[in-house]
Amino acid sequence: MKTLLLIGMGAGDPEHITVQAINALNRADVFFVLDKGQTTHDLVRLRLEICQRYIREPSYRVVQVSDPKRDSSTPSYTAGVEHWHAQRAEVFTRLIEDQLAEGECGAFLLWGEPGLYDSTLRILDRVRAHGCNGFDYEVIPGISSVQALAARHRIPLNDIGQPIRITTGRQLSANDLDNVVVMLDAHCSFDAFIEHDVDIYWGAYIGTQDEILIAGKLSQVCDQIKQARAQARQRKGWVMDTYLLRRRT
Amino acid sequence: MKTLLLIGMGAGDPEHITVQAINALNRADVFFVLDKGQTTHDLVRLRLEICQRYIREPSYRVVQVSDPKRDSSTPSYTAGVEHWHAQRAEVFTRLIEDQLAEGECGAFLLWGEPGLYDSTLRILDRVRAHGCNGFDYEVIPGISSVQALAARHRIPLNDIGQPIRITTGRQLSANDLDNVVVMLDAHCSFDAFIEHDVDIYWGAYIGTQDEILIAGKLSQVCDQIKQARAQARQRKGWVMDTYLLRRRT
Ligand SMILES: C[S@@+](CC[C@H](N)C(=O)[O-])C[C@H]1O[C@@H](n2cnc3c(N)ncnc32)[C@H](O)[C@@H]1O
Ligand SMILES: C[S@@+](CC[C@H](N)C(=O)[O-])C[C@H]1O[C@@H](n2cnc3c(N)ncnc32)[C@H](O)[C@@H]1O
Repeated sequence: MKTLLLIGMGAGDPEHITVQAINALNRADVFFVLDKGQTTHDLVRLRLEICQRYIREPSYRVVQVSDPKRDSSTPSYTAGVEHWHAQRAEVFTRLIEDQLAEGECGAFLLWGEPGLYDSTLRILDRVRAHGCNGFDYEVIPGISSVQALAARHRIPLNDIGQPIRITTGRQLSANDLDNVVVMLDAHCSFDAFIEHDVDIYWGAYIGTQDEILIAGKLSQVCDQIKQARAQARQRKGWVMDTYLLRRRT
Repeated sequence: MKTLLLIGMGAGDPEHITVQAINALNRADVFFVLDKGQTTHDLVRLRLEICQRYIREPSYRVVQVSDPKRDSSTPSYTAGVEHWHAQRAEVFTRLIEDQLAEGECGAFLLWGEPGLYDSTLRILDRVRAHGCNGFDYEVIPGISSVQALAARHRIPLNDIGQPIRITTGRQLSANDLDNVVVMLDAHCSFDAFIEHDVDIYWGAYIGTQDEILIAGKLSQVCDQIKQARAQARQRKGWVMDTYLLRRRT
């Protein structure tokens, strides 16, 4: 049997890592690192730093492969993602079959929390469905960007006894504005809601040295956030941001 | 100035703790432990075990106070919670004023993630609003029971590109059944939805030695979960469970 460890690494701060994750890192013979191209070299570097910092006997191998790129020109979002997952499943199958010996343990360091907008679990399902079955796997939870956002702004995620919604920029709608966390938003979708009486708690590169935090009434800080985001993006070549919108009471 | 640290401790497994949380534990001069009565002595014990395990120089003090009990006979849920928060704010004010010296650092070990259905942040707002201002505070995120649930069942929290809802037993409705995580459910609210074509991923005491996990089509495993829950509750005197409901596709 081979073992795969899907290790949540936290969302930018190397100290977000848990003791459980550190123990998992120390069990791994091989680390699989998927490079998504230029903009994410920084994120690959952080993974390697985590290995260097927390692994006690550095006898591990690192196998770096380039991650298939999602074709965003596909008319249907879901079909585009499906096709991309199929390609990634092939890459994963090759990694498991060619780069991991019987009895060995391979690890993926997953950004933030493995259960939150991360496709690795779904891709492993595909890998198994396509007949590559000789492995078991474990999931180790990690601090998500949602939690990092709430902690840095020192706010609760929910109103008393009320639900929490986490959604994507693409899905955000006016019905969500009572209380919603938005991720994966490439287009400042909050901009469409400045007429509403809501507060925004926004953060980019949370937990890293580049962290930017802005909070306030949406209509008042909207432009400031758009500007900060555009500038940071230009300077670093990429940006990751998350925010919470909450109706003022 | 005095400092308060609100430290997320994870949801039952002492290895859920992060390096950031361990560093915070080691900064604290005093730990404030709120005992909620008989049923939660176990949870107090876990907090003390975490201190013993992770603090390098054990020169800290522990101040244990009994947490005011929420009066569940109050007709309005919100009014009941409001009153309870007011009482807790008084307790917190006394702790900060009487038990923490200038320049000292006090810590609360908060269950799971401090931003998720935890009233500590809201109570500190009250404490400040009532004029007790001579302190600063920091929040350290922690692995929530939601993440522990997903990791143990090895499932993603969301469908591809779709929102996530986290709600309470009290608020759960048929509209949520596409994909919802339920917490704080004293009454097996899932029981009302067995006619729907949904899967349930249920867990109690997740991360602890008493962990119970059950998953399957809701109509098929509903009774098994209710039985397991009732038995465990009787045996231990208390139960904490969380579950995800997801429409079958
Ligand atoms: C593919 S999702 C992965 C989320 C990850 N699994 C987690 O738990 O945070 C990537 C999105 O997470 C958010 N994100 C991740 N890290 C972040 C950070 N350090 N600061 C702000 N947002 C972040 C952004 O919204 C980004 O578009
Ligand atoms: C007051 S809330 C606090 C939640 C906590 N802040 C967190 O992040 O998990 C308590 C609820 O969390 C859930 N919970 C906490 N720990 C759990 C565990 N180890 N197993 C199952 N459910 C748990 C239960 O639904 C319980 O009613």
